[in-house]
Amino acid sequence: MDRLEAIVKALRDFVAEREWEQFHDPKNLAMAISSEAGELLAEYRWVNNAEADDYSRQPEPRKRVAAEVADVGIALLLFCDRIGLDLIESIQQKMARNRDNYPVERSRGRWDRPA
Amino acid sequence: MDRLEAIVKALRDFVAEREWEQFHDPKNLAMAISSEAGELLAEYRWVNNAEADDYSRQPEPRKRVAAEVADVGIALLLFCDRIGLDLIESIQQKMARNRDNYPVERSRGRWDRPA
Amino acid sequence: MDRLEAIVKALRDFVAEREWEQFHDPKNLAMAISSEAGELLAEYRWVNNAEADDYSRQPEPRKRVAAEVADVGIALLLFCDRIGLDLIESIQQKMARNRDNYPVERSRGRWDRPA
Amino acid sequence: MDRLEAIVKALRDFVAEREWEQFHDPKNLAMAISSEAGELLAEYRWVNNAEADDYSRQPEPRKRVAAEVADVGIALLLFCDRIGLDLIESIQQKMARNRDNYPVERSRGRWDRPA
Repeated sequence: MDRLEAIVKALRDFVAEREWEQFHDPKNLAMAISSEAGELLAEYRWVNNAEADDYSRQPEPRKRVAAEVADVGIALLLFCDRIGLDLIESIQQKMARNRDNYPVERSRGRWDRPA
Repeated sequence: MDRLEAIVKALRDFVAEREWEQFHDPKNLAMAISSEAGELLAEYRWVNNAEADDYSRQPEPRKRVAAEVADVGIALLLFCDRIGLDLIESIQQKMARNRDNYPVERSRGRWDRPA
Repeated sequence: MDRLEAIVKALRDFVAEREWEQFHDPKNLAMAISSEAGELLAEYRWVNNAEADDYSRQPEPRKRVAAEVADVGIALLLFCDRIGLDLIESIQQKMARNRDNYPVERSRGRWDRPA
Repeated sequence: MDRLEAIVKALRDFVAEREWEQFHDPKNLAMAISSEAGELLAEYRWVNNAEADDYSRQPEPRKRVAAEVADVGIALLLFCDRIGLDLIESIQQKMARNRDNYPVERSRGRWDRPA
């Protein structure tokens, strides 16, 4: 069992011990992902792009950011576990499509999707 | 290298080949996480709680959901990589706090945080 | 001046007195809208569809919901003011498109967009 | 009836004609607000702070931004209408609290909340 599988198992146990499966349908977990992502977003909303890397290294913001990242990750892993989706495999499939949609030669230094 | 490390490495290469590090400061990646989470949310906004599990098993919605989950995961992993944060470790630390904040006996079957 | 114009003027003065225009570029305000929307979302994430209307009438949740709604509204009005967009007019234009995209006969009781 | 009241009435009629009240409980509308806010966010995620005002003036982005702003506004007004909340009044109450929490002298040029 690798680290990711171990943490998913720990999350599943955490939820089962508290009998929280009743709250954790995919709709509610999608809401949890999004509301936690919103809290991470809040950390950066008044921070300028040019200062965002530095800000992420300061001890106090970093602690909060790590906690918000964890919350997003937890909700995302619970969501995947609930619907029986392998996160890594889904990412691999999406990356294959991204490689097609953003060919290196036409996407270098440009964020917009080539026509 | 486990599966998670391998996918992070693949993502890092994908970004480097396209010279996208310039767009990927933590502020922008936090926005990417949140906007992708919003797309996942959109899949479920008119689906009733009672139907959300079934909905997630239907082939067409499932395909879209898997793609949105992947997008959230990609943005989250890129964010962690950018600021040098270990996602699994952050989740472990947050779970330790959650175990304190939501003791089994007082949280069984209740989602609200015990006083 | 109607109530909406009056509140926009009050918001503009509030921002100017604090010299916050420097933080309120459209990117940051879009982040503010989204993070405040995430806080509203958090209020409902574990509430079942069937209970959501009742929940919204209970005094304590209602107070929190009203505050979150206000935060979303404030950020949205500040955003529109910053880029010189008339919110009501934008809504009118979008409703015209929605009337085309969701004809009454084909959309009655169905949320999915007709092909 | 002012412009805001007129648009709320038009939205209410639009929903009633399509018998969409069944989908528009407060939970689902909170999701709609957040997913639409995520689409607005997506418009700015790779745009630097320094370029965000200019970007908002370019015809094509502006058209998309106006449509996303309208979608957030529509969902927000439908939410308020569903739970019987006066948006303007809620904003006025929140502004009174914000005036207390962010006194002019201590908040000038600073976005963080004074201790």
